Amino acid sequence: MGLDPTRTVQELKELRSLTADQNGAQRVAWTDTWLKSRKWFESKLAGLPVEHHYDAAGNQWVTLAGASRKALILGSHLDSVPNGGWLDGALGVMAALEVLRRINDEFAGRPPITVRLVDFADEEGARFGRSLLGSSAFAGTHSIGADRTRTDKDGITMEAALRQCKVDIDRFPDAERERENAAGYLELHIEQGPVLENLKLPLGVVLGTKGVERHAITFHGQEAHSGSTPMKSRRDALAAAAKLALEIRNIAGKHPDAVCTMGSVKTFPGIVTAVVGRCETTLDQRDLDAQVLAEMNRAARESSERFAVEEKCTVEWSRIWNIEPIKFHPELIRMCHESVTETAGATHELPSGPLHDAAEVSRSGIPTVMMFVQSIGGISHNKVEDSSEEHLAMAIRAYDRLARKAMSWIQQS
Amino acid sequence: MGLDPTRTVQELKELRSLTADQNGAQRVAWTDTWLKSRKWFESKLAGLPVEHHYDAAGNQWVTLAGASRKALILGSHLDSVPNGGWLDGALGVMAALEVLRRINDEFAGRPPITVRLVDFADEEGARFGRSLLGSSAFAGTHSIGADRTRTDKDGITMEAALRQCKVDIDRFPDAERERENAAGYLELHIEQGPVLENLKLPLGVVLGTKGVERHAITFHGQEAHSGSTPMKSRRDALAAAAKLALEIRNIAGKHPDAVCTMGSVKTFPGIVTAVVGRCETTLDQRDLDAQVLAEMNRAARESSERFAVEEKCTVEWSRIWNIEPIKFHPELIRMCHESVTETAGATHELPSGPLHDAAEVSRSGIPTVMMFVQSIGGISHNKVEDSSEEHLAMAIRAYDRLARKAMSWIQQS
Repeated sequence: MGLDPTRTVQELKELRSLTADQNGAQRVAWTDTWLKSRKWFESKLAGLPVEHHYDAAGNQWVTLAGASRKALILGSHLDSVPNGGWLDGALGVMAALEVLRRINDEFAGRPPITVRLVDFADEEGARFGRSLLGSSAFAGTHSIGADRTRTDKDGITMEAALRQCKVDIDRFPDAERERENAAGYLELHIEQGPVLENLKLPLGVVLGTKGVERHAITFHGQEAHSGSTPMKSRRDALAAAAKLALEIRNIAGKHPDAVCTMGSVKTFPGIVTAVVGRCETTLDQRDLDAQVLAEMNRAARESSERFAVEEKCTVEWSRIWNIEPIKFHPELIRMCHESVTETAGATHELPSGPLHDAAEVSRSGIPTVMMFVQSIGGISHNKVEDSSEEHLAMAIRAYDRLARKAMSWIQQS
Repeated sequence: MGLDPTRTVQELKELRSLTADQNGAQRVAWTDTWLKSRKWFESKLAGLPVEHHYDAAGNQWVTLAGASRKALILGSHLDSVPNGGWLDGALGVMAALEVLRRINDEFAGRPPITVRLVDFADEEGARFGRSLLGSSAFAGTHSIGADRTRTDKDGITMEAALRQCKVDIDRFPDAERERENAAGYLELHIEQGPVLENLKLPLGVVLGTKGVERHAITFHGQEAHSGSTPMKSRRDALAAAAKLALEIRNIAGKHPDAVCTMGSVKTFPGIVTAVVGRCETTLDQRDLDAQVLAEMNRAARESSERFAVEEKCTVEWSRIWNIEPIKFHPELIRMCHESVTETAGATHELPSGPLHDAAEVSRSGIPTVMMFVQSIGGISHNKVEDSSEEHLAMAIRAYDRLARKAMSWIQQS
């Protein structure tokens, strides 16, 4: 007996065949396919001496009680985006199960500290547009009062959809009870980006999740006839937006890991024969350092105002959403480096651009770290998402090493 | 008796009250409101010794027969865009009527040459997207074979809509017969741009209509996660498009009257959290000089290809439409300058960016010129379109002078 990474890869394939179609994974939270994947997961617990339940926010918990009530939590999420990949989330849950099995074997069902596995509900927010739903309830940072009336594309409210899955929104705060005795949280995830692949490294240590500033920026100029309006008389809202689209790259370029993205541009009237009178854009800025993020945001604002003046336009900002950077625990980061180096011979640390359940767990005060496995082509939220089986096996072994170190650390603390 | 510009302004207001609503003029070709405006116009002919008919393409003709069959044509169009202005087109038709009245008075119903008034059908192309419909039939440059199956927003075909207005598409080529004996064409129009206003001049002489190159340009990059994709790994289709949006201004800036416009930008997937994988843009380029136009088009193409390479994208061009520049007749341009100077004390010549019926008439070989009256704020295709009554009166007087000179020129030629 002992750790068997091959089994985990086999189980991930089994889950894929059960819940994916020709377009990819369909384990969207609060749907039948998602419930099916959770039932399948429960069946994998047979024979393990564990307690199993769903908490008030729909998070799934598996507990292997230890000599101490202090608990190390291992986990991720089983839900996916529509047409998603086989590894995003599921890898972390199934690796956690494999590690739990190894611990159970090694300590004959009674480890020195308690080990828990969590499958967070609705990490992706794919159906209702609210990501990290279950982990935010766990962390006590949920916004369910505002979220309950969100609707899906068919007009079904979040409240009704959750009730269908036996989750009562009014009981959401009870999920916080699961934090009791939690002493550490470890999450393995596919990178969803090209950094490790570019460095030809199988594994990486995640320093934290970047803070995000997300804004709608609208330039107002003057709609005008493309034929009769001389270039010098124009107040071209697109020109101001184009300058900003290029400038945000300079702004990001001043900081090694920062990213700035203009993901959407809409032109009004948006016809071939009219100078653009109004241009609506979006800006998404991310960095692990709160000061860098604030500085980038200020720089983008100042640039947009300068460009508006240059183009005789006005500009208006409206915040869509933001979150502060969340840095993981230094001691767990150190242990993660050791585990990765011992397994793969080399290590690398990187911040995560995408958010993860680990961010919510970490901001609730529980020492947290994440490990990334290389993503082929950096492609994510797509059926072609993949990692090599060799890298997956290394990831599970390194994650197990990390769990071992974290258990000792918790035990001694 | 004699020329009465006040009457024309009064009639234009009458037409407005009859065919505009709170959103502006609604004289869209092939609609009841348009037919109503034409009926109203017919009623203004009472008492004039003129022949009146509609040709095979729905153009309205009023003929005051002269001693010679050689004909000077005065005209424009009564149709408008939806929510349009009171002067675009209608000014030219009503000024032509006023001049026709003056000529009839002066020559007691028998001028030395024939004078004709034309109200071209569907200059705007507002309902079916095909502008200059009637004048292109007159000029023999129509494309009715391709156009007949065009549909409006309710799915009604152009062919059916025209039949409702008693125009049989198969008889379209018969409209060319109206060119017989045509020896000159004069059109008065509102500028629809800010040039004369910026120069504080009431009137201008139009050198011709600019040629147009109209293209769809699509940049293909790689859709990627805005959080996990480092700036250096991106293939951002928007960045390439933004560079082109700015560069076309430099390209136009090299030529005094040239214009280049990016009127529409569409981003795909177009969400705040994704680097733009595909960016669809449109380009509209215009100049009176065919060589300048070709050079600007080549420069835009080369720039787009350079920007695509810089951004690791590809670019694809597809022509939407084009037309060559059409220069008006030098002798009529000279007479137009004289008429404007004699009336307003100063003159200015400029090309027209927007197309006009005069362009079709001119390309059919009939000596043609246009006169512009200052447009307040340069605003067009909008209910706020306006010219001062003082300028309108000057325009009608200058247009009358031009008609007088053109008649002598035709008579002597």
